[in-house]
Amino acid sequence: MESTRLWAGKEDAEDPLAAFRAEFALPDGVIQLNGNSLGPLPRTVPGALDAVVRRQWGKHLIRGWFDDGWFDAPERVGDRIGRLIGADPGQTVVGESTSVQLFNAVAAAARLRPDRRVLVCDAANFPTDRYLAASVARVLGLRLVECTAGELAAVLQAHRGEVGPVLFGAVDFRSGELLDLAGTTARIHAAGGIAVWDLSHAAGAVPVEVDAAGVDLAVGCGYKYLNGGPGAPAYLYAASRHQAALDLPITGWHGHARPFEMAGAFEPADGITRARTGTPQILSLLALEAALDPLERAGVAAVREKSLRLGDCLAALVRELPAEIRPEVVTPTEHHRRGGHVALRCPDAPAVSAALMERGVFTDARPPDLLRLCLNGLYVSYTDVFDAVAAFAEVAAAGSGERRAKGER
Amino acid sequence: MESTRLWAGKEDAEDPLAAFRAEFALPDGVIQLNGNSLGPLPRTVPGALDAVVRRQWGKHLIRGWFDDGWFDAPERVGDRIGRLIGADPGQTVVGESTSVQLFNAVAAAARLRPDRRVLVCDAANFPTDRYLAASVARVLGLRLVECTAGELAAVLQAHRGEVGPVLFGAVDFRSGELLDLAGTTARIHAAGGIAVWDLSHAAGAVPVEVDAAGVDLAVGCGYKYLNGGPGAPAYLYAASRHQAALDLPITGWHGHARPFEMAGAFEPADGITRARTGTPQILSLLALEAALDPLERAGVAAVREKSLRLGDCLAALVRELPAEIRPEVVTPTEHHRRGGHVALRCPDAPAVSAALMERGVFTDARPPDLLRLCLNGLYVSYTDVFDAVAAFAEVAAAGSGERRAKGER
Repeated sequence: MESTRLWAGKEDAEDPLAAFRAEFALPDGVIQLNGNSLGPLPRTVPGALDAVVRRQWGKHLIRGWFDDGWFDAPERVGDRIGRLIGADPGQTVVGESTSVQLFNAVAAAARLRPDRRVLVCDAANFPTDRYLAASVARVLGLRLVECTAGELAAVLQAHRGEVGPVLFGAVDFRSGELLDLAGTTARIHAAGGIAVWDLSHAAGAVPVEVDAAGVDLAVGCGYKYLNGGPGAPAYLYAASRHQAALDLPITGWHGHARPFEMAGAFEPADGITRARTGTPQILSLLALEAALDPLERAGVAAVREKSLRLGDCLAALVRELPAEIRPEVVTPTEHHRRGGHVALRCPDAPAVSAALMERGVFTDARPPDLLRLCLNGLYVSYTDVFDAVAAFAEVAAAGSGERRAKGER
Repeated sequence: MESTRLWAGKEDAEDPLAAFRAEFALPDGVIQLNGNSLGPLPRTVPGALDAVVRRQWGKHLIRGWFDDGWFDAPERVGDRIGRLIGADPGQTVVGESTSVQLFNAVAAAARLRPDRRVLVCDAANFPTDRYLAASVARVLGLRLVECTAGELAAVLQAHRGEVGPVLFGAVDFRSGELLDLAGTTARIHAAGGIAVWDLSHAAGAVPVEVDAAGVDLAVGCGYKYLNGGPGAPAYLYAASRHQAALDLPITGWHGHARPFEMAGAFEPADGITRARTGTPQILSLLALEAALDPLERAGVAAVREKSLRLGDCLAALVRELPAEIRPEVVTPTEHHRRGGHVALRCPDAPAVSAALMERGVFTDARPPDLLRLCLNGLYVSYTDVFDAVAAFAEVAAAGSGERRAKGER
């Protein structure tokens, strides 16, 4: 094993992204493998946020909205995120939580197909996606059909001519499987539907090309691979071709064509600006903006390439574990089907994750039996992966011994 | 005039709240009279936010959600705001923008009265309130009726038995008039309706007693009299008696009874927690929490008492202005009908506001002809009011001279 760790160290020494690790505040002794829950603190953030608070808010007061660019931040930061997901400028706007953006996006998608009464939602989607799809279906009087990606073709066929919005997660938050964004979108379009994607587990982790894939609408969160901080605001992408007809239910005054006229009736702004909602939470929004810097400089393609190599390395190390503690690698091994994290199936996953955290290895568990390890190439090293698997082996061996002592298998 | 300025200085010297002024970062040479648009920076905020970023996020990573109390922050900060608006604990939750909370609150109010098909909205309400009321009406198939407070009794009579939600602003954002919260709520209840209040211009400025007034639902923003910073998150209040039946359309996973079970169907949490939405923007939320500190220590009653005195002082100074530049004081003079700001009607109000800002006097203008001066007792001094009126006199005299030169009246 020691020779393998030396190999990992050699990989780190030759890693073209190695220098980016120092751009994140990673506490000593911590191996950060749950950046798909909360990305670590980019060193660009504290100073930027302090300037926003002390210099902009503190000294410029209300003038910060225009003199410091607060007012344009939803579109400006939106365009920066847009570049990370393959969107040309003017199609992405930042604000609110992913849940709110889901409500807005799915409802708007339904209104683009007013004659279609079926809303399809990924049965493996993150819970909040399913809850909001159900809420939109209820509010607009649609029929909600949940299915897996594998069942989608059959569902579209069974409800042909009826399906409007189709909401899928680009990366399965449990298994880490990456769906075929372009192929699935094409299938939805062939059935006359509107493709709405949740990119929370994809943006910043895998190359996403929403424009090229013909995606209609997309949403995502700012706090996973975008490293924007706890609860960083979400974003909404709407393809240019839909914007003039985009009819969003959260008609906040910042989406008005002339907000400062304070007119009595809502008149949506041109372009993506109509997808602004209420007054944006500037501190969280500008922290997210500062956080994008290292990812932009590294480039998603390079981060992805390293992440895949880290995943291959993880799989190889897992294969070498003794059979009695060896977890099943649930995530597909093929690169084109793998997202940014790897999921391992193991007994007592929550207890294993807690025990790993005690040793400084930050992972997380998803019910009932999945351990997730996020392999973000921006700051995770090959040695991290080696050390994490070694820690897993110790924890799993202890758990296995306990189960044997109790007479469980 | 100089003797009046000396009088103002004497008032400041005897002002029991004078020391609170130093708790805000007020730039030299600035008179901050638009805290009803954006409150100034409380000195409690920068250090608190820096600790959240560097120590909590930076060192604790994902554990911050529980070890640092991020997860409970929406209810914890909600209860602190609740105390400022007369709400017992467990009825107020913080998150998203006011626009989103309006959508959620008005829709939930409508669902509390499913047999009633008329939604009434204050015709003088802030635009975003009117836009969201219209959106809810459209989504739920309700008829929207707009009316002023003075017309409400007649509207309730004309639509008797039909009115469900009634949305009013507690303080008119233009005129500064304070409505009778308890009396209006009682009138709405007598007609079988649900009273939804926007407290954005009232909370922290005037004593609001939502529990005592029998208010059903309320929302408000965090960045005006609560000083929470640009776009600080909004809050939603729902009276305990309604919570078990509260059916909110933004069914985000943080409002689920057991969010970490990741169940497929939404089951609302007990109590006000069901009004949580998606993952909260923690940086903006905890900045708001830190910002509440000076207001809580001063107490809304003391702030209000001083604010009224500042308003009386302003009115007296305006009365002494030469007739050709003397603005009309639009805000009611009676204390029980006056909110936290005073509105003056004058020609070219936007130009006057801009000229005042050049002199360091921060006010704002609302179309077409209102100049708003926010007299927040926490940090505005009597001398500020004197100096602001003196600056107004100079600016107005220059404008009046220009209009005479052009042959306008």
